[in-house]
Amino acid sequence: MVSCVNIDGKTCYRIASELYPVFRSITGQGVRDTLDILKKYVPTLTIYSVKSGTEVFDWTVPPEWNCYECYIEDADGNRLIDFRNSGLHVLGYSCPIDKWMKYSELKKYLYVQSNQPDVIPYVTSYYEKRIGFCLSVRQMEKLASYGEDYEFHAVIKSEFNPDGVLNYGEFVLEGESDKEILISTYICHPFMANNECSGPALSVVLANYLKTQKRKYTYRFVFIPETIGSITYISQKLEALKKNVIAGFVLSCVGDDNAYALVRTRYGNTLSDRVMENVLRFDAPNFRNCSFLERGSDERQYNAPGVDLPVCGFCRSKYGTFPEYHTSKDDLSYISEKGFDGALNVLKKAIAVIENNDYYRINVLCEPQLGKRSLYPTISQKGVHGHVMAMRNFIAYADGKNDLMDISNLIGVPAFDLIEIKNKLLEHNLLSIQKNK
Amino acid sequence: MVSCVNIDGKTCYRIASELYPVFRSITGQGVRDTLDILKKYVPTLTIYSVKSGTEVFDWTVPPEWNCYECYIEDADGNRLIDFRNSGLHVLGYSCPIDKWMKYSELKKYLYVQSNQPDVIPYVTSYYEKRIGFCLSVRQMEKLASYGEDYEFHAVIKSEFNPDGVLNYGEFVLEGESDKEILISTYICHPFMANNECSGPALSVVLANYLKTQKRKYTYRFVFIPETIGSITYISQKLEALKKNVIAGFVLSCVGDDNAYALVRTRYGNTLSDRVMENVLRFDAPNFRNCSFLERGSDERQYNAPGVDLPVCGFCRSKYGTFPEYHTSKDDLSYISEKGFDGALNVLKKAIAVIENNDYYRINVLCEPQLGKRSLYPTISQKGVHGHVMAMRNFIAYADGKNDLMDISNLIGVPAFDLIEIKNKLLEHNLLSIQKNK
Amino acid sequence: MVSCVNIDGKTCYRIASELYPVFRSITGQGVRDTLDILKKYVPTLTIYSVKSGTEVFDWTVPPEWNCYECYIEDADGNRLIDFRNSGLHVLGYSCPIDKWMKYSELKKYLYVQSNQPDVIPYVTSYYEKRIGFCLSVRQMEKLASYGEDYEFHAVIKSEFNPDGVLNYGEFVLEGESDKEILISTYICHPFMANNECSGPALSVVLANYLKTQKRKYTYRFVFIPETIGSITYISQKLEALKKNVIAGFVLSCVGDDNAYALVRTRYGNTLSDRVMENVLRFDAPNFRNCSFLERGSDERQYNAPGVDLPVCGFCRSKYGTFPEYHTSKDDLSYISEKGFDGALNVLKKAIAVIENNDYYRINVLCEPQLGKRSLYPTISQKGVHGHVMAMRNFIAYADGKNDLMDISNLIGVPAFDLIEIKNKLLEHNLLSIQKNK
Repeated sequence: MVSCVNIDGKTCYRIASELYPVFRSITGQGVRDTLDILKKYVPTLTIYSVKSGTEVFDWTVPPEWNCYECYIEDADGNRLIDFRNSGLHVLGYSCPIDKWMKYSELKKYLYVQSNQPDVIPYVTSYYEKRIGFCLSVRQMEKLASYGEDYEFHAVIKSEFNPDGVLNYGEFVLEGESDKEILISTYICHPFMANNECSGPALSVVLANYLKTQKRKYTYRFVFIPETIGSITYISQKLEALKKNVIAGFVLSCVGDDNAYALVRTRYGNTLSDRVMENVLRFDAPNFRNCSFLERGSDERQYNAPGVDLPVCGFCRSKYGTFPEYHTSKDDLSYISEKGFDGALNVLKKAIAVIENNDYYRINVLCEPQLGKRSLYPTISQKGVHGHVMAMRNFIAYADGKNDLMDISNLIGVPAFDLIEIKNKLLEHNLLSIQKNK
Repeated sequence: MVSCVNIDGKTCYRIASELYPVFRSITGQGVRDTLDILKKYVPTLTIYSVKSGTEVFDWTVPPEWNCYECYIEDADGNRLIDFRNSGLHVLGYSCPIDKWMKYSELKKYLYVQSNQPDVIPYVTSYYEKRIGFCLSVRQMEKLASYGEDYEFHAVIKSEFNPDGVLNYGEFVLEGESDKEILISTYICHPFMANNECSGPALSVVLANYLKTQKRKYTYRFVFIPETIGSITYISQKLEALKKNVIAGFVLSCVGDDNAYALVRTRYGNTLSDRVMENVLRFDAPNFRNCSFLERGSDERQYNAPGVDLPVCGFCRSKYGTFPEYHTSKDDLSYISEKGFDGALNVLKKAIAVIENNDYYRINVLCEPQLGKRSLYPTISQKGVHGHVMAMRNFIAYADGKNDLMDISNLIGVPAFDLIEIKNKLLEHNLLSIQKNK
Repeated sequence: MVSCVNIDGKTCYRIASELYPVFRSITGQGVRDTLDILKKYVPTLTIYSVKSGTEVFDWTVPPEWNCYECYIEDADGNRLIDFRNSGLHVLGYSCPIDKWMKYSELKKYLYVQSNQPDVIPYVTSYYEKRIGFCLSVRQMEKLASYGEDYEFHAVIKSEFNPDGVLNYGEFVLEGESDKEILISTYICHPFMANNECSGPALSVVLANYLKTQKRKYTYRFVFIPETIGSITYISQKLEALKKNVIAGFVLSCVGDDNAYALVRTRYGNTLSDRVMENVLRFDAPNFRNCSFLERGSDERQYNAPGVDLPVCGFCRSKYGTFPEYHTSKDDLSYISEKGFDGALNVLKKAIAVIENNDYYRINVLCEPQLGKRSLYPTISQKGVHGHVMAMRNFIAYADGKNDLMDISNLIGVPAFDLIEIKNKLLEHNLLSIQKNK
């Protein structure tokens, strides 16, 4: 059953809301539940399973972890924290426990964000066995108020399955060319809206948009647990990715309404960098232009030496920089329909530019006579037709050495706006596309 | 008969004054009259004719247009505007008319510059048939004061000759090398001083200067109607121009006394760009350094994709930026002898630098001993001989990798000033010219 | 007999103090005495002699000059200036004189620094025969107070030996590779501390430090008279130097405690420029970053066209810029143990960076799992481990395309600090050195 997918921020928000309450980690049932929700919107989504213990480059796929309960209760059965209220309460990959213990001992298992007393922090310990409860400073104060010797019932019902799997989803929209644009997002954070649900929600809406478009390029969407998921994915597809991917974006924190951020590739000079900088520089000049030193999500793996894929990070609020990040405050109130609309629009423009980013060459020597084609005023008086300069400047630099973005940068007009101009010139047979540049 | 040609601004001004009253358009008798005047100063000027209807790249040479009368008179025979007072009154390439009509109808044929009420604007309609009178807002107000129903006699005696010609002039001063410097200027604007007469006047004086100089390079001067003329010219000479031209300048608006302007080539990196920037940066650092986006005269055609000639624009007041531009206020009071002197001096320096712009290599290893050649003080005490640093720095960078302008830019001394230094070093046999760089 | 050489500024200062009172010129006994002192600290120092009259590139080795006395006395035998008090009193390469003459005549032979009335200036006339006494304005005023007609006894006992020699010293510390680092300093200024003794003193201490180090590269130290010495030296060793020298530094004025100065090579882009800029930019960001236009010592010859050796100048107070320069005020109070300690530390770091400046490549695809090697925290919570970013960023750019300094510049961490990081990664077998880059 396919849900109705309109191409707008409202739909993104609705899907993000549906994803929000699912309890996720880097493995486990939550990942599968998440992929099942996404499959409703993209029926061709393929869900892959990779066995725990599989070696993926320098890493090993961890045991599958599932968690069913997590609470701390007092002797009267009052649950002072409970996983049912927030999936953040359990330390990611915590070992199970079911024990009455004094607060003086329990303290060792408590994780708080001391500089933000009202939030439950998001904390994980994927590769070292620990037991942990995450809670707000306020909640910890409440526990402390019982006294050091008070005994609480600390319960985590979790299990590690060394015969489990890590899951990820992928689907491909084929275009005229084998060359691909990669859209990658992650599905491993519990109970956070912007830094989790926004990326998959926007991705499936974008996919539905692209289905309706004539596509020169092939589009590959991947939904993976962060870090171990991208490493696993790359280890399985490296050759194909290196052969075909010409641009790509990791979507993360794309649902809020703050300034955009671009996280550049290792050297900041790929097609992905160029297109996103071009779109943002004209449309949202206050965007945050981050070097690769500010990376943080799966662009780390895509850009690693030897992997070398041209993949940028794209965010609105840059991960790691907003106070709500990795806390319970990153909830559905942090994201908005308007925020999604903006991000969706940027991506649509970026894709349009990539699709049209050919090398162009004007077909005539000297300036073409635009007037006889009604592309230029036939009366000449000073100060009356600045508005045709974009076309004349496009022609001046359409010398076969510049692609659409080069021309845009040379003449100071958004590449997206040049698409219409070059289409007009193509119609009048004044322009050729250079094939083998 | 050759008129006496002194190489100074005074002579430029005199020639400009002689050219000023001729009625010109892109074709017609005025162009021929203009070329005849120029030929007095450069007897070797060759005048070419290209037939109307000739296809030149994307354009067609238009019918030859001549205009003999243009006036508006009232019922009492008072001429409220008259072509005899200003060649600007007729819309360029206006169709003929001889008709009594009400002001309410006449209005449709009137062109004014509404933001400059006292000027007659320069307006043309070369490639679409129109009838038009150009006049000042004040003059239009006078016409209006007769009332909407008042009948005026509107007369334009013009004719289009489809069997006519487009004319241009050219002459060449041969040098030791086939490689050429192109000087191009235009001869198509009626009744304007800076934006028309200054370029041809300066060109013929510069030509007379060059005749007296030892020339490494060949110099080609062309006098053409703007746009259609340069397109026609290029279409006839493209192969030779591409083979030989190593630098060139379009001279336009070079007779006034304001800051200089350089209009750079398409990528701003040719010999022409380099030399003019070098001269102006040191001699007139407040010059206007315009990118190709600010182009406007025949550098548009010379730099077009596939034409690719290294031709800059050179102006004093940049065309299009001063209020008098393309109006009756661009008269002989806007230009001056001093203004011409400055432009002439810049061009002489630029040409000297091009002529001397070789790659140089010092003939000895380590520093030469300048003292024994009286090129350096023989007493060494701190703080007493900064003035010989230019020569020492020239030597330091005369490694065969740098031409005169590279060295100038590296050491911060005008390239023109380095000519004397390198000549001294050549005399002392301390320096070689690298032949095949 | 080898004197004890500790590797510290104190030892540098002690050696500089020992060199200070020796009377030196570009040739003569003082140069040999200086080399003999240095040989105590570096027994393998080889002392070379080049005969006067030898042609060295564009120059000729001058006659050996020695000076034994230089004074001006009054009729009562009072010596108003005396060489025994300061070696600066005699004009370098002065001809001998022994004559009673009126002050009005004597004046012609007096050299003062008129803008610094209390100092004796350092003045030379190596290549033109002159007689001269250098003295302070105060001392000249004293002479003048005797009256114009007063007769003084002016004595200079100097001699020129056309069969003499020019001396210089050299020694080499061999490393694993034939490729060399050149350390050059000069030994020709009399009686000045920073601008003479500091360079040789620091060089011999640095040499003793390097003797104790594992050396990938060979280190060549040269002690030469400035200009004529370096020209002579280069003329004798050019081929070997061009074949082997990969970096080098002229040490001059390295004993004071002011901001450092780097004098860059001709194009400012050699290994020497890069390493010194990297060290200074992080450790002493207020350093004076001088282009080759500000050169002044033997880097002039090493960088001359055709010589083309990658040799920078390194100073603390830049020669030529401090008031004490080339005067009697550049005495032992101008330099300090602390000043030497700083310069020594910069050079040790620069050498460590050169020794470790390989191209590195990470051995795994995607990010390595640092946590399992205790190189990264196993608990993930925001804001708690910025300190491991240097290692992660090093890895991100260890793609085989960057040497240590490239990585340093890309990630904003001093190259010297990256040495420990890359050593840890090498230990864990996570990194390879690229051999043939």
